[in-house]
Amino acid sequence: RYGQAELEDQIGMATGLAYTTVGGDTLSIEVSLSPGKGKLILTGKLGDVMKESAQAAFSYIRSRAETLQIDENFHEKNDIHIHVPEGAVPKDGPSAGITMATALVSALTGRPVRKEVGMTGEITLRGRVLPIGGLKEKALSAHRAGLTKIIIPKDNEKDLDDIPASVRKDLTFVLVSHLDEVLKAALVGEKK
Amino acid sequence: RYGQAELEDQIGMATGLAYTTVGGDTLSIEVSLSPGKGKLILTGKLGDVMKESAQAAFSYIRSRAETLQIDENFHEKNDIHIHVPEGAVPKDGPSAGITMATALVSALTGRPVRKEVGMTGEITLRGRVLPIGGLKEKALSAHRAGLTKIIIPKDNEKDLDDIPASVRKDLTFVLVSHLDEVLKAALVGEKK
Amino acid sequence: RYGQAELEDQIGMATGLAYTTVGGDTLSIEVSLSPGKGKLILTGKLGDVMKESAQAAFSYIRSRAETLQIDENFHEKNDIHIHVPEGAVPKDGPSAGITMATALVSALTGRPVRKEVGMTGEITLRGRVLPIGGLKEKALSAHRAGLTKIIIPKDNEKDLDDIPASVRKDLTFVLVSHLDEVLKAALVGEKK
Amino acid sequence: RYGQAELEDQIGMATGLAYTTVGGDTLSIEVSLSPGKGKLILTGKLGDVMKESAQAAFSYIRSRAETLQIDENFHEKNDIHIHVPEGAVPKDGPSAGITMATALVSALTGRPVRKEVGMTGEITLRGRVLPIGGLKEKALSAHRAGLTKIIIPKDNEKDLDDIPASVRKDLTFVLVSHLDEVLKAALVGEKK
Amino acid sequence: RYGQAELEDQIGMATGLAYTTVGGDTLSIEVSLSPGKGKLILTGKLGDVMKESAQAAFSYIRSRAETLQIDENFHEKNDIHIHVPEGAVPKDGPSAGITMATALVSALTGRPVRKEVGMTGEITLRGRVLPIGGLKEKALSAHRAGLTKIIIPKDNEKDLDDIPASVRKDLTFVLVSHLDEVLKAALVGEKK
Amino acid sequence: RYGQAELEDQIGMATGLAYTTVGGDTLSIEVSLSPGKGKLILTGKLGDVMKESAQAAFSYIRSRAETLQIDENFHEKNDIHIHVPEGAVPKDGPSAGITMATALVSALTGRPVRKEVGMTGEITLRGRVLPIGGLKEKALSAHRAGLTKIIIPKDNEKDLDDIPASVRKDLTFVLVSHLDEVLKAALVGEKK
Ligand SMILES: [Ca+2]
Ligand SMILES: [Ca+2]
Ligand SMILES: [Ca+2]
Ligand SMILES: [Ca+2]
Ligand SMILES: [Ca+2]
Ligand SMILES: [Ca+2]
Ligand SMILES: [Ca+2]
Ligand SMILES: [Ca+2]
Ligand SMILES: [Ca+2]
Ligand SMILES: [Ca+2]
Ligand SMILES: [Ca+2]
Ligand SMILES: [Ca+2]
Repeated sequence: RYGQAELEDQIGMATGLAYTTVGGDTLSIEVSLSPGKGKLILTGKLGDVMKESAQAAFSYIRSRAETLQIDENFHEKNDIHIHVPEGAVPKDGPSAGITMATALVSALTGRPVRKEVGMTGEITLRGRVLPIGGLKEKALSAHRAGLTKIIIPKDNEKDLDDIPASVRKDLTFVLVSHLDEVLKAALVGEKK
Repeated sequence: RYGQAELEDQIGMATGLAYTTVGGDTLSIEVSLSPGKGKLILTGKLGDVMKESAQAAFSYIRSRAETLQIDENFHEKNDIHIHVPEGAVPKDGPSAGITMATALVSALTGRPVRKEVGMTGEITLRGRVLPIGGLKEKALSAHRAGLTKIIIPKDNEKDLDDIPASVRKDLTFVLVSHLDEVLKAALVGEKK
Repeated sequence: RYGQAELEDQIGMATGLAYTTVGGDTLSIEVSLSPGKGKLILTGKLGDVMKESAQAAFSYIRSRAETLQIDENFHEKNDIHIHVPEGAVPKDGPSAGITMATALVSALTGRPVRKEVGMTGEITLRGRVLPIGGLKEKALSAHRAGLTKIIIPKDNEKDLDDIPASVRKDLTFVLVSHLDEVLKAALVGEKK
Repeated sequence: RYGQAELEDQIGMATGLAYTTVGGDTLSIEVSLSPGKGKLILTGKLGDVMKESAQAAFSYIRSRAETLQIDENFHEKNDIHIHVPEGAVPKDGPSAGITMATALVSALTGRPVRKEVGMTGEITLRGRVLPIGGLKEKALSAHRAGLTKIIIPKDNEKDLDDIPASVRKDLTFVLVSHLDEVLKAALVGEKK
Repeated sequence: RYGQAELEDQIGMATGLAYTTVGGDTLSIEVSLSPGKGKLILTGKLGDVMKESAQAAFSYIRSRAETLQIDENFHEKNDIHIHVPEGAVPKDGPSAGITMATALVSALTGRPVRKEVGMTGEITLRGRVLPIGGLKEKALSAHRAGLTKIIIPKDNEKDLDDIPASVRKDLTFVLVSHLDEVLKAALVGEKK
Repeated sequence: RYGQAELEDQIGMATGLAYTTVGGDTLSIEVSLSPGKGKLILTGKLGDVMKESAQAAFSYIRSRAETLQIDENFHEKNDIHIHVPEGAVPKDGPSAGITMATALVSALTGRPVRKEVGMTGEITLRGRVLPIGGLKEKALSAHRAGLTKIIIPKDNEKDLDDIPASVRKDLTFVLVSHLDEVLKAALVGEKK
């Protein structure tokens, strides 16, 4: 049942939505911490753009550690590994940016990610959320996977009407322009 | 007699099952530790996907060191080398993930791997086991090598009926969805 | 509304003007600091020339830290990340040099960049500003984005008459030959 | 007379047997130690498989330092250089594994390698010796070079009958399945 | 007016002469120092030969620090950046060697480079000056840029008669075979 | 007069003989030391084989530091730069091995290299000298350059009769099989 919505809220894992040549798909972004020296490890056959997107998410979180209630020195005391399963499938593009950021914040704060949430959006170094492509296909795949709450960039609002009404009625869309709004919608309020 | 089941349980070695263009094959995954500074060395003409799979296995184990009864600081005090013999043969893909994880845990805990066990399955950063391809060919090669207990992903249960009955009757299949179940089935309970 | 002039002055972000095969465009250059050891991280699908341009801007600022009222040791205590959003779009060339320098100085001093300012110009290691191409297209894109004050190299003065009068009348051009003049025109005088 | 058996037992040098498109050849594997920090330097136009083979040999020896009577900390105090002369000739493959291991142990213990010995065999991380190709051509080249004692993998026993009787009668073959047997046959018992 | 002789003597900048497929050109070589750990940064779309030439110049200066009245430890306390502006233009070849050396010595001693001087010549690790190509084109470009004193390798004396008399009469040529002579001719005697 | 025999014995420079598609040539190998941490810098458009040859020479010298009367810790206290001038000309092959070794020993001991000496030969990690190609062309170029004493591998003795008698009579050949003999013939006995 890999590829379906989780049965329980998870710490250090968030669900992204991908748009490929063969349609939409869901994407688990996993984060693990181990005692270390601040190395950022990125695996899962990720392209350069996706790796840079992870770095942008990571730098944003490091620069906002205090506000996000993360130990400021986590970087010095841990190695951080971001992995995207189905290791043989190539993945690229910037649209998993907010998903990687959410999984990172979850791992670093211990706050679980709501199991019904999927998301897509490019993140900038200031936490801004930029628009993405393939919203329709992404929404269809989220629906298939049993997700019910979809976080998307505010600049993609105009694309909502491309989604078939039958699917749209089962989904709640959260329109965001900053990562703060993503985290508010995706994370459970308190440590599990 | 290389390629046949071991005559005794081994520490730091587990047997994987590979699926190549010319059929299935068994794969010894060897792990050795030496005093060092935490370098992970990967050899045996491994492709990028297989190397990333090793990193995922390694990070999972590091993040779960305490539960797995591994000295939390093993990473700082040792270099860890994972080698897959027959060094001239190219190997790739994520399906040796749980085998690499098992060989690592065996080397780090001193618990031997049961000599009759072969296994295949992708591992994620949370220890989840994802499905693999070529189950039939892998089962045939395990049978040829004299293995009797085969650990496979639960999501591959539907492929069991592809295996000829004559082979299937000699093999015990252990269906798993998490590395904990793999280790329980593959490792001898106590230090040798 | 990404790609439009900011609603408020920003710290650590400056707006550049790019010239591509499909016309002019605006470019947000973002800078973030995190506790670190002086690593310069460059992301946003930047070509080699643009990366070298960032290094030149960075070295100039390091060599002039005192004059610019920057803590001389910022380099030892921080990692500095320069990111250019729209991570899937390739960017190259030296003409974002003064924009990267301005964003860096803003981030390091806490002085905001005026929201109405766009700029273009190559920077040298001595802070000199060298001429760029595509001024007309860049001015048109700045105009479309709602910017009103455009900083350009003095050596491009001769190209001003290529800009349509209808656009030109809405824009104020600041001609510069050294980064000091750029910073004077672009940065708000005091810490926000 | 390069390419001929040495006139005296050597420390830190062992003779391998190679199989190329133009027939068999002998190969001197040289090892030198210098005060350093544990860097492993590999030269002689070696391909990736041969370099990985050297790493496997090296890791095996590091993990077994005590048993092999090697100072456990040699790795921290020395740089280790493995060179294969005739630097313009490309070399590759895993079959020099046991030769590199033998030269390393010789250099690290000060025990000389018997001058009449040639050898071929892949080494694994557990010191196992795996079969190789081209035994006939290798035996012929060993014979030409004046070697008299040839160490080969036990799994190649079946290929001995391919060697012409006229050559075979001059050679003593030592069949091995583990590096311990290689070292016993190749090294002089005591420090020179 | 970039590309013209400077209006004042500069510290850390020297003017080279380049020979390209479209004729000769002048080249500003800029050097900046920042507190650091001895990293040598080379930018300006430089080819490998030009980068190696910079390293040769740098090593020569380091090995002669005392004689050149440079703090022997400058290397440990500074990062040194050599940049050649017009960052989008590829540059290569060894003939900027003495220019890079001169700019480095200027930056490290604080002695300005005479504004009327241009130069060309390969430098060796012992400070020798080797001949270069394209002297005629280089002299013409120096003339156009308003330079009046041109330093060239002694071994190029035979090429002086290729330069049109009308140009030659405006230029003073300094023939050199060692960097000492270059520095004597190019640097102002005392700290500015 | 670059390419001609030196007018005086040099410290840290030895003359090699190269064999190219356009005939033989002489090659100056320059070595400089600067305070550092043991980095080996190789420049002069050298191919991989020539770089590995330099490493072999360097390791041999490090392992024999005491015998060669070199401070054992030179490696920790210096960076060592080997440069081969005429930086735009590609160079490769192992035959400059003994020349690089000689230049290194000269630089490290302060003993000058005799100005009348040219040499060619591959060096191994044990200081052995292996045969080279193109002896005739190399001898002719040495003769043209005004060298009178040529050091060659003993295994090339058979090629001496290829050299025209008119040239041969002006040259003294020193046949060597180990670097000790090279150093004895090439270095002046005492520190200059
Ligand atoms: Ca999928
Ligand atoms: Ca729409
Ligand atoms: Ca096999
Ligand atoms: Ca089925
Ligand atoms: Ca845009
Ligand atoms: Ca104009
Ligand atoms: Ca040979
Ligand atoms: Ca047979
Ligand atoms: Ca120019
Ligand atoms: Ca002439
Ligand atoms: Ca020449
Ligand atoms: Ca002959």
